[in-house]
Amino acid sequence: MIAVHLDSGRVCLREIPPPRRSRGFALIRMLVAGICNTDLELQRGYYGFTGTPGHEFVGVVVDADTPSLVGQRVAGEINLACGHCEFCDAGLGRHCTNRTVLGIVKHPGAFAEYLSLPERNLHPVPDEIATDQAVFIEPLAAACEILDQVQIPPGERVAVLGDGKLGLLIAQVLHAHGAAVVLYGRHKEKLRLAAGVETSVSIDLPRARFPFVVDATGSANGLQQAVSMVRPRGTVILKSTIHGEVRVDTAPVIVDEVTLVGSRCGRFAPAIDLLRSRKVDVSPMIAAAYPLEQASEAFAAAARKGVLKVLLRNSAA
Amino acid sequence: MIAVHLDSGRVCLREIPPPRRSRGFALIRMLVAGICNTDLELQRGYYGFTGTPGHEFVGVVVDADTPSLVGQRVAGEINLACGHCEFCDAGLGRHCTNRTVLGIVKHPGAFAEYLSLPERNLHPVPDEIATDQAVFIEPLAAACEILDQVQIPPGERVAVLGDGKLGLLIAQVLHAHGAAVVLYGRHKEKLRLAAGVETSVSIDLPRARFPFVVDATGSANGLQQAVSMVRPRGTVILKSTIHGEVRVDTAPVIVDEVTLVGSRCGRFAPAIDLLRSRKVDVSPMIAAAYPLEQASEAFAAAARKGVLKVLLRNSAA
Repeated sequence: MIAVHLDSGRVCLREIPPPRRSRGFALIRMLVAGICNTDLELQRGYYGFTGTPGHEFVGVVVDADTPSLVGQRVAGEINLACGHCEFCDAGLGRHCTNRTVLGIVKHPGAFAEYLSLPERNLHPVPDEIATDQAVFIEPLAAACEILDQVQIPPGERVAVLGDGKLGLLIAQVLHAHGAAVVLYGRHKEKLRLAAGVETSVSIDLPRARFPFVVDATGSANGLQQAVSMVRPRGTVILKSTIHGEVRVDTAPVIVDEVTLVGSRCGRFAPAIDLLRSRKVDVSPMIAAAYPLEQASEAFAAAARKGVLKVLLRNSAA
Repeated sequence: MIAVHLDSGRVCLREIPPPRRSRGFALIRMLVAGICNTDLELQRGYYGFTGTPGHEFVGVVVDADTPSLVGQRVAGEINLACGHCEFCDAGLGRHCTNRTVLGIVKHPGAFAEYLSLPERNLHPVPDEIATDQAVFIEPLAAACEILDQVQIPPGERVAVLGDGKLGLLIAQVLHAHGAAVVLYGRHKEKLRLAAGVETSVSIDLPRARFPFVVDATGSANGLQQAVSMVRPRGTVILKSTIHGEVRVDTAPVIVDEVTLVGSRCGRFAPAIDLLRSRKVDVSPMIAAAYPLEQASEAFAAAARKGVLKVLLRNSAA
């Protein structure tokens, strides 16, 4: 099969055998996959990654232990948990200390004609959700994770910082939840994609501070900005994975007793519900789609400023 | 009356009129006051403070609207709240946006023969608590604040970083609460003062990471240290007010979904209970006591390495 291969910043194609299916696993033919900022960071060599990246995908099960799964269109949770550590016991397989991670840590990713994942990681995609949209289930789940971690009463004011892919999804998720969201970003054309959400291209500091602020800037000064916008006893949600150290003045965090919450992957069910009920619209975020064979061009397009989601299609599917 | 005066790093004495008592306020004759790290920071000029410092004290009420208060031995909460903002309405006067703060922000402090505070800030000191010990009610309340903010199940493992005054109080408070505390510090002679608490002079990294870590190091790298010791989904409590920016790698905070909680002042009632029931022993932390007239020497002693609590006594009381 064809698989994308990342090595020392180079994106190339390889002809390799399809993955062998182990017990408990499904073999999946990839239909469409999405390039995420993490993939671009893997390309930049931040994590010493070599291999096949890709963790946002929709595919069709072609072989599995459970016969009813075969033929199903599925999305897949990316953390492969051991199933028997203290985190797995607590239902927190996403934090399993022995985990591998699809296309990120020691498990070949979805930018290939076939991939394999444990059956328990798979979620059938309802017919109402188009395949291109279903690619967003994984990042949308990461946005929904905020609501699993932090109780945000409907009507409450929330500032979301950053108009990148994740910021746009978070703003829509919290808006659908009933929060009074203000999305702050630098690009009017991106802000426009957060349908129904109040947006601002400038930080309006005299404005009353927010009980909740989400940093999705992807920038090293996003945290400091978020802290300056949150009110005493408020909560800042950290969604910007930055490579290296960040500088922050912790004195106001302590004096104002602010809570900072790191937030990563989420459950797929709420994301699937939001797409099915059309409460979140991801289609306008798709900038381009390339065949798997043009992965190198696709990565270059995804890295360009102002470009949101770039998809890879399996032409053989 | 005699009052300590801080100006551009100089500690001097002034003869000034006693404070005039406003309605709702009590006039208090200071008995004993404690020098806190914040006082040393005010001396270093970090906050542009000029005036009378001091916010840890025990005194006797000499005049008040409420006749029964007169003659009482009291400790006092340091935040003077406006009583009608949204934080005051929510019972969070400690976060009142219009507040002044005894000896810190626009309200003359306790390093004087007399001070004034709103009656509602005062807490009678039970007879079982000696005056020198009652000086610790304020910092002990700050240690207890952790238990008001974060639910720590009894038996749960907690790492406390820092063997300064606050670290020692926090370790004792959490130990009294029933947590399995390990106090990390550099000074064996200080660690010895945390009666009954397991202590360590070295960070033992292979040890399983902690669900709760308290940074009370007072050092700029305490936060990074705390983050490296907390387990996924764990909580780091920030108790080190550092002047200036801190560097921290936020990637593990996000990947492991760690929660960071800023923590400052607390309610006095739990602190009074702990002293009355002798569950916390503060006496060994008293390094020296000076008369108010020797405030300059007292500040110098408090700033010396290895010295814990230095008291100021009102010789006229």
